[in-house]
Amino acid sequence: MSSQARSTSSTPRRSLRECRELVEEGCLVLLYIDERRRFIFRVRRGGVKGSDKGILRHDDIIGKPYGSRVRLSTGVEAWVLRPRPLDLVELHHRRATQIIYPKDSAFIIQLAGIGPGSRVIEVGVGSAALTTILAWHVAPDGHVYGYEARRENLEAARRNLEELGLLELVTLHHADAREGVEERSVDAFIVDMPDPWSVLGEAYRSLRGSGVFIAYMPAINQVLRLLEAVHEHGGFIGVRVYEVLVREYIPRPDTLRPRTTMIAHTGYILSAWRVHV
Amino acid sequence: MSSQARSTSSTPRRSLRECRELVEEGCLVLLYIDERRRFIFRVRRGGVKGSDKGILRHDDIIGKPYGSRVRLSTGVEAWVLRPRPLDLVELHHRRATQIIYPKDSAFIIQLAGIGPGSRVIEVGVGSAALTTILAWHVAPDGHVYGYEARRENLEAARRNLEELGLLELVTLHHADAREGVEERSVDAFIVDMPDPWSVLGEAYRSLRGSGVFIAYMPAINQVLRLLEAVHEHGGFIGVRVYEVLVREYIPRPDTLRPRTTMIAHTGYILSAWRVHV
Amino acid sequence: MSSQARSTSSTPRRSLRECRELVEEGCLVLLYIDERRRFIFRVRRGGVKGSDKGILRHDDIIGKPYGSRVRLSTGVEAWVLRPRPLDLVELHHRRATQIIYPKDSAFIIQLAGIGPGSRVIEVGVGSAALTTILAWHVAPDGHVYGYEARRENLEAARRNLEELGLLELVTLHHADAREGVEERSVDAFIVDMPDPWSVLGEAYRSLRGSGVFIAYMPAINQVLRLLEAVHEHGGFIGVRVYEVLVREYIPRPDTLRPRTTMIAHTGYILSAWRVHV
Amino acid sequence: MSSQARSTSSTPRRSLRECRELVEEGCLVLLYIDERRRFIFRVRRGGVKGSDKGILRHDDIIGKPYGSRVRLSTGVEAWVLRPRPLDLVELHHRRATQIIYPKDSAFIIQLAGIGPGSRVIEVGVGSAALTTILAWHVAPDGHVYGYEARRENLEAARRNLEELGLLELVTLHHADAREGVEERSVDAFIVDMPDPWSVLGEAYRSLRGSGVFIAYMPAINQVLRLLEAVHEHGGFIGVRVYEVLVREYIPRPDTLRPRTTMIAHTGYILSAWRVHV
Repeated sequence: MSSQARSTSSTPRRSLRECRELVEEGCLVLLYIDERRRFIFRVRRGGVKGSDKGILRHDDIIGKPYGSRVRLSTGVEAWVLRPRPLDLVELHHRRATQIIYPKDSAFIIQLAGIGPGSRVIEVGVGSAALTTILAWHVAPDGHVYGYEARRENLEAARRNLEELGLLELVTLHHADAREGVEERSVDAFIVDMPDPWSVLGEAYRSLRGSGVFIAYMPAINQVLRLLEAVHEHGGFIGVRVYEVLVREYIPRPDTLRPRTTMIAHTGYILSAWRVHV
Repeated sequence: MSSQARSTSSTPRRSLRECRELVEEGCLVLLYIDERRRFIFRVRRGGVKGSDKGILRHDDIIGKPYGSRVRLSTGVEAWVLRPRPLDLVELHHRRATQIIYPKDSAFIIQLAGIGPGSRVIEVGVGSAALTTILAWHVAPDGHVYGYEARRENLEAARRNLEELGLLELVTLHHADAREGVEERSVDAFIVDMPDPWSVLGEAYRSLRGSGVFIAYMPAINQVLRLLEAVHEHGGFIGVRVYEVLVREYIPRPDTLRPRTTMIAHTGYILSAWRVHV
Repeated sequence: MSSQARSTSSTPRRSLRECRELVEEGCLVLLYIDERRRFIFRVRRGGVKGSDKGILRHDDIIGKPYGSRVRLSTGVEAWVLRPRPLDLVELHHRRATQIIYPKDSAFIIQLAGIGPGSRVIEVGVGSAALTTILAWHVAPDGHVYGYEARRENLEAARRNLEELGLLELVTLHHADAREGVEERSVDAFIVDMPDPWSVLGEAYRSLRGSGVFIAYMPAINQVLRLLEAVHEHGGFIGVRVYEVLVREYIPRPDTLRPRTTMIAHTGYILSAWRVHV
Repeated sequence: MSSQARSTSSTPRRSLRECRELVEEGCLVLLYIDERRRFIFRVRRGGVKGSDKGILRHDDIIGKPYGSRVRLSTGVEAWVLRPRPLDLVELHHRRATQIIYPKDSAFIIQLAGIGPGSRVIEVGVGSAALTTILAWHVAPDGHVYGYEARRENLEAARRNLEELGLLELVTLHHADAREGVEERSVDAFIVDMPDPWSVLGEAYRSLRGSGVFIAYMPAINQVLRLLEAVHEHGGFIGVRVYEVLVREYIPRPDTLRPRTTMIAHTGYILSAWRVHV
């Protein structure tokens, strides 16, 4: 997508919300050739999307309704879909070494009680995979405040969010959250960093009463240490620890079976309510 | 909660969105005594909430911030929390025989690409557990259109949504969706009924191009039959079948372990994109 | 079964191996009335087995082949089966607070490479559930050496093994294994006690080269501490940590689905090879 | 291993049971260099085992105890272990396209009640992975009767079992079990073929009363069809359907976590008792 990104400087950038029925210039599309060939890009006049199955000229789809069937230069059939946030994360962010998977971000959204209007702090933005989902759900009047200490991550996050038209819903801080966060009275505080216990005090200070603290951790040792820290800190109740497993099936009606391999582990999710002590 | 419902006729009913920092008359609260004693009710002047651990007078919490510690009549400590949609479903709807669990509704929200502004048809509303989650996420300008053929379910759904302050985001139809749905160009069509294949044609007619069809089914036989029907019908691509499993841990830092028993099965989730043929 | 145990003093006790085709006096049988009514007892002349569905007179089944259909006093149909070691554990030992489940013992047998002729030390015999499975598999010329520090457990274990005709394959020590085990050059050393790290030295001394050390632990903290101890001790390679999950289906051909709840956690299993350093 | 197989014609072949403490000529060894470099071969005078980490001369280990540390030609350290049946299947049979995994064979052994002395029919021997485990457990006086219709599979199975020293416990039939099996009054009848329902009559005829029928099936459609066939046939009770999932952890004491990917599906296991009707 980077080549697209360079060339779209003069293309209008429309948000997912603006592109609902028709594919217009500046809209994101998901080109679906088959399950292994799914591509997300922004449509611009004169643009071209290549693949090993043939080429698609952007002009051929401008003005068509989402869901239309198109033909690549080779005659191969494909479909023009409206990407879901799920697809943005799966197809756009996936090069990043470690993202929070949709199965986990979906559950985090529920645990944190996030919805339209929510104000959320996210510590450890990475390439903005989770941020993408958060921004989608807090719209139109909520906001995500992202903290990221590594400059290269922050730049990638900014580019991704801008490209996806979500940057106006997000404030990115190039800062180490352990040294303090600015916002107060937020609804949720979500941490994806190796030492979540080191921001527990900041979480307490920035969360409103009954706000929700969430940490996402790959190793069980982190969970143990965080549990100890939460108990020691005080001011958090209703601590829960979860894992989410999604099992996908090969959807053939004559030989239905689960896929042979699955992602068996991504991270543990800890949640707790912040209360007044 | 029905006794509350009867007596609150003169109490203002405030939505979750209106009750963010302070507990005001007409707001919903989650009284957290301990993990086994969590109650959701609406606050009204002069109201009383009883439990086997003591009594809480509503007047004692009006004007306090969410997250406050209170004492029951017995001196037992408790907390006043702002319920999340998750809690509404778990604590308010759970009497219903069969609800869609938060783990599943969370994943359905992502698969269907639902967010603020989405227009969603839900077939088989039941007691409105999933509807509650859908309404929460489509606010402020989206809408849920619910179909339910059984009058007693519809009444319960209406009461639940009204009580939770979500009814303005939902239109409930007392109708059999197999005989036709009214809405057109919706973003998602979600089915929770024993014979989802019987509304496939309606789903196709009502979904916009690139809209998402979702079915939720307890038995594998239903999945097989629906897969066949989807292939036969045509006009749907990218069919996926999933199961979501959530494993909860007993969060003791000195003896961390998964809970001995878990909900090992609720339902299979099928999703597909609707395309123009 | 204790009432049976008392009264069978004069009844010959036949091992499972002796009772293969015909139900003879002194053989164990599994009376299968339905899935919820399955009983194991030893057959004796004049004996009676009661249930809420009716009574079975032992004399009615003596001399019949296993697998025969019988009628209880009420006319209700039932079946006389030959119990598997699995059934002995499930139906005979299950009163014990905490047993090693068949799913786990099955995997332990494979990890430990146990088979006919194996010599195995088991530390923490409890009510002898795992011992039953071990004894079954090491027959006819292997042996199980069980250590149990609590006298009441040891007595229960002895009674269970005697009743099941397996005691000749087992030596029970009323001793704390942390203070030393007698046997040398055993093939496997299996620990089910809260502090498995405390017998690591004994495991090393008693295992032959390339013998297998196994520990079974409910909490993740135990796994962490044992991992550290194993690395520190040295002399063990190929360390593996596993969990075994078994998912059961409700076997109706028209509505096949997994059971709603499952045993989601019993214990973690650690295995390692003992080598010469 | 085929090169070894060719050259060992004059080497004595010792069974696992004969090779317990010392590595002798004709014994099988597992050379453990690291987790990714584990090799099984039979020891012969003058033999050489190569690897990308260096070469091992067989003569260097003859007469040493199992569990000994050795040095490869490069100075790299390795260990000489006594393979477990588990390792034979994992390292020796794994080239085969589809084997029954140890997690499944372990559970099948328990479900079928197999132990020393058991007589078992196996239909669909394949490369003899399950046969290896069965033969190990029925020794010394039991027997496995294997049916395999495809000659190339049968030859591979025979070579594998011969190489592993287990052939005397197995009779291999080059025959289609659907056309009839010879043995009667067997303890267990285990099927791994695409149409297990087609041998249900043969299973009934060959099993003793209270013997156990087991089928192993990758697709859920097979389970449904077999369930119907079992109900229709009659003479089987206590039908159960299972899946076994094994989750492995990366055993680092400082960052313990489950492996990212796991084998999420191999096959469904159905078991039932054969009774007299």
